Amino acid sequence: MLFSALLILSLHVTRAAALWPRPRSLSTGSSFIRLGDSFEVVAEQGELAKELERRLAKAIARTSRHLQHDRLRRLTPDRGESDRPQVENAPILSRLFLSLNSTVVGTLEDEVVNLYTLDESYSLSVPAATDATSPTASAHLSARTLVGLLRGLETFTQLIYFLPAADDALDGLRYIANVPLRIEDRPAFPYRGFMLDTARNWYPIEDILRTLDTMASTKVNTFHWHITDQQSFPLEIPTFPDLATFGAYSADRIYSTVDVAKVVEYGQDLGIAVMLEVDMPGHTASIANAYPEHIACLDARPWSTYAAEPPAGQLRLGRPDTLAFSKRVLQDAAKLSSSAFFSSGGDEVNKRCYLDDPETSAALESRNSTVDELLDEFVRGLHETLVESNKTPVVWEELVLKHDLSLAKETVVMVWIDSANVRAVADKGHRIIHAASHYFYLDCGAGAWLGRYANGTSWCDPFKTWSKSYSFDPLFNLTREQHELVLGGEALLWSEQAGPETLDSIAWRVWLVLPRSPRAAAAAEVFWTGGSVTEGERSVGEALPRLHDWRYRAVQRGVKAIPLQPHWCALRPGQCDVEL
Amino acid sequence: MLFSALLILSLHVTRAAALWPRPRSLSTGSSFIRLGDSFEVVAEQGELAKELERRLAKAIARTSRHLQHDRLRRLTPDRGESDRPQVENAPILSRLFLSLNSTVVGTLEDEVVNLYTLDESYSLSVPAATDATSPTASAHLSARTLVGLLRGLETFTQLIYFLPAADDALDGLRYIANVPLRIEDRPAFPYRGFMLDTARNWYPIEDILRTLDTMASTKVNTFHWHITDQQSFPLEIPTFPDLATFGAYSADRIYSTVDVAKVVEYGQDLGIAVMLEVDMPGHTASIANAYPEHIACLDARPWSTYAAEPPAGQLRLGRPDTLAFSKRVLQDAAKLSSSAFFSSGGDEVNKRCYLDDPETSAALESRNSTVDELLDEFVRGLHETLVESNKTPVVWEELVLKHDLSLAKETVVMVWIDSANVRAVADKGHRIIHAASHYFYLDCGAGAWLGRYANGTSWCDPFKTWSKSYSFDPLFNLTREQHELVLGGEALLWSEQAGPETLDSIAWRVWLVLPRSPRAAAAAEVFWTGGSVTEGERSVGEALPRLHDWRYRAVQRGVKAIPLQPHWCALRPGQCDVEL
Repeated sequence: MLFSALLILSLHVTRAAALWPRPRSLSTGSSFIRLGDSFEVVAEQGELAKELERRLAKAIARTSRHLQHDRLRRLTPDRGESDRPQVENAPILSRLFLSLNSTVVGTLEDEVVNLYTLDESYSLSVPAATDATSPTASAHLSARTLVGLLRGLETFTQLIYFLPAADDALDGLRYIANVPLRIEDRPAFPYRGFMLDTARNWYPIEDILRTLDTMASTKVNTFHWHITDQQSFPLEIPTFPDLATFGAYSADRIYSTVDVAKVVEYGQDLGIAVMLEVDMPGHTASIANAYPEHIACLDARPWSTYAAEPPAGQLRLGRPDTLAFSKRVLQDAAKLSSSAFFSSGGDEVNKRCYLDDPETSAALESRNSTVDELLDEFVRGLHETLVESNKTPVVWEELVLKHDLSLAKETVVMVWIDSANVRAVADKGHRIIHAASHYFYLDCGAGAWLGRYANGTSWCDPFKTWSKSYSFDPLFNLTREQHELVLGGEALLWSEQAGPETLDSIAWRVWLVLPRSPRAAAAAEVFWTGGSVTEGERSVGEALPRLHDWRYRAVQRGVKAIPLQPHWCALRPGQCDVEL
Repeated sequence: MLFSALLILSLHVTRAAALWPRPRSLSTGSSFIRLGDSFEVVAEQGELAKELERRLAKAIARTSRHLQHDRLRRLTPDRGESDRPQVENAPILSRLFLSLNSTVVGTLEDEVVNLYTLDESYSLSVPAATDATSPTASAHLSARTLVGLLRGLETFTQLIYFLPAADDALDGLRYIANVPLRIEDRPAFPYRGFMLDTARNWYPIEDILRTLDTMASTKVNTFHWHITDQQSFPLEIPTFPDLATFGAYSADRIYSTVDVAKVVEYGQDLGIAVMLEVDMPGHTASIANAYPEHIACLDARPWSTYAAEPPAGQLRLGRPDTLAFSKRVLQDAAKLSSSAFFSSGGDEVNKRCYLDDPETSAALESRNSTVDELLDEFVRGLHETLVESNKTPVVWEELVLKHDLSLAKETVVMVWIDSANVRAVADKGHRIIHAASHYFYLDCGAGAWLGRYANGTSWCDPFKTWSKSYSFDPLFNLTREQHELVLGGEALLWSEQAGPETLDSIAWRVWLVLPRSPRAAAAAEVFWTGGSVTEGERSVGEALPRLHDWRYRAVQRGVKAIPLQPHWCALRPGQCDVEL
């Protein structure tokens, strides 16, 4: 007991603010302030107030729900009981004022479309005490965009701790420690994403919406929706409804245009853009359920000769009506998504599939072309359509590295095979989204999923721990001039061994945004806060207590995030550290 | 589409019965039978019927709920649609008759106490067609014990597939394929367990009860409840209520005697014994919150010198009142548990902790004893109490191997460090429970959980895949005479990185009983069905489709078991196999 008391003292100092991601600038005091019973979030009076109120009504309602339902007690052995005397006697915080410091108030829709050039910064201040002339005090949040305000509101909710009422009254005390407090915050990188594969196994819309909530809680701004793949095609394409009718796992496992619109709108309210990916020309065997004429080497055996995983099948190259079909699919899909980016995929294209396909090999011969030349023509055709649809094309790294396609400089490249390849992509002048499998693949570490493979290991073993994700350096090995090519990064959940049953626990291990556990949350901090572990700007030891706070709060919000340590350790920062 | 049709034909042959664990003997036909709308489970008329009805009322109600709520369609590309014509025209199965072929009808309570010497066998037959004199047919389940009937009822529910009604009527069709069907089944090993650590992180009672349901669905018969540890002491000990009051994480994270009784009773209804473990003398730092006088080297630093994980602290040896206290704790705990076995733990006892503890080192000197001699005296004292309480003592392997204690031959030994140690334990004549960390530790593979340990690996990496668990050979390296010493085995979930949020998804990967996924289910089959992979009696390829069936059914019953493969593969056995 003595031992616990000693510990609390030090915690008050070290755990000033358990924010995730860490703000770029934070100053704190040592006083307490308590939220009044009628605490409210209000827009400042002024000419923008009405517009603000309308636009921010949902965000304010969401913030109020969090303030109401989050009942996170301090993660200390006494769960904050020693705060009680100070909290009970603390001055009252009666409101949070919001102000938008911009003469141009755009719509949230516009802001989400322009997210990667948008100012997401915000300032937040919480005073220490009431001034003499007023019985209560106000906190202030200001930003230059609506999205900036959303980011700041999330930070504000993470400041609040809870103590149950001593007399068993209906409700407890909500308070902020370490006031006065001032935060100046802005992201290090504009693109901070979470990718979910909904084709290997299917996820209900409600699981996706809950995931967006968790993303927002870590300031991740892009839902990269890998919506189709070789095993199933669950996306409704209005021009070709048979694609989903015959390509989805079943009639109740289709994302209709209404469903996608629901996700897009939900994202908009949270300042999250939805970037769809319709992977082409590989990973498309499921298209053959409705349109077999477009697919080469369908279900060819042995599958491992023709595809990275079963079943084999790729869109035919050098066949004009297949290109026209593929362009039309992308045109329809582009209309459904809100991000300015759209991914046409392009990973794991198998050459042998085309060489052994009679139709494609005839085209190769008659045109005296190589597979890569036909691939170049195909991808440039797809991108023409995307540009016409006002989308910036995004591709997986192989298209520019392995196949050396002549894609427009504007094309954004996702590097997944090895982050060592980032430099080569930058040398070609492309902008980069980090998606390194050895840091950010949330599904790795469960061994092989292929059948008849006792003791089988997987190429992507081992499990990527949160501290591994957290140690990623986004600017490693790039020249100073290349730094601006890094748009950000994402955590990725491929679904061969994941599904709605395990979404929360697998994704939310540490990336700052995602679902099995805080892993996705770790990635979120890397790309919001920036800095590197090796240069001492980021420390796993400093991060862990904050991550515990984030995780306990996420669990209260209904996210089944995995525990990172025994509860005993979560209450005692540093005491479960390794001794080197 | 053509391709799918071809596949279905072969599935009808290969997936005769998707039972998990696989019965010891199974014969099937090729007809269908459909469950009537008023299908019922009834005890056969006779002198035992009344007794049976009373005892089995709950089991029958549970079976009826499963029959009602399980809506598992065949795992084929057409989800069983091609069965429809045969199902619609199939004869009607109107009831399942139960009979108990024993002149001695015991109570379920007695049977659970005597589980490891009990006859759990059963016979189940489902006819192909009605006979000429009766419009409907009956299935028959018989056993020599109530527990045997419970095992058979679970098997029966796993035979049923569902097809939605073609005309959107209120309910669908339930049917059994491959009748006539006859099963003769009995376990290969009497002890089939699942261990849950509720001390590192705490689990609500409802999560434990749901876990018991899942255990029952794979015929696992023992809930090994590792209920206390160094981080917290959540068990109410009536004689020493302060142990939980000060040792639990909080007042709402205590298992009261009423809570434990609820788990015991729920287990009894399912034929599951609850084996409590109060680990001693190591893993007891949490006792110091109430009784610091009994704990040596409490929170000594660096912790890694004194304990396997923080915080350090062990029950003092050579101190009479500490032994008396410990015996009294076990005496109280023994009364709460239903298994004939009780574990006093004994793993990871740290010698340095005692040598550096002034009080213990004084005792060592004054008695001219070694630590192992005092340990021997302590453990034998504990076991004396357990035997007086009608419990067979169970210990971790170190006590007989590393410390070479002179424990009674009756003492059961759990081998966890390495299954290679099983032989040495058998050579000492002890009975064995397999708990091999490299096969059955469900929590491994998530990397280190200690803080400030970037990229840290864990001793128990990598993740144990279901096929790894499934490849375990319980009799490996033992002499023919030693085979009878193997009581069985268990899957284990330690909770440093697990909690109620992830229980289902972590445990139920493949052991036939447990929660993140079917991993616990894999262990269940190993110890029910027996056989070895190397000798060809067990095959990962044969098992996978059955495990998919089990997993899809478990999800329908509310268990969030992780997907083992893309849904596409689950519907197409063999097509996602590795090509060697």
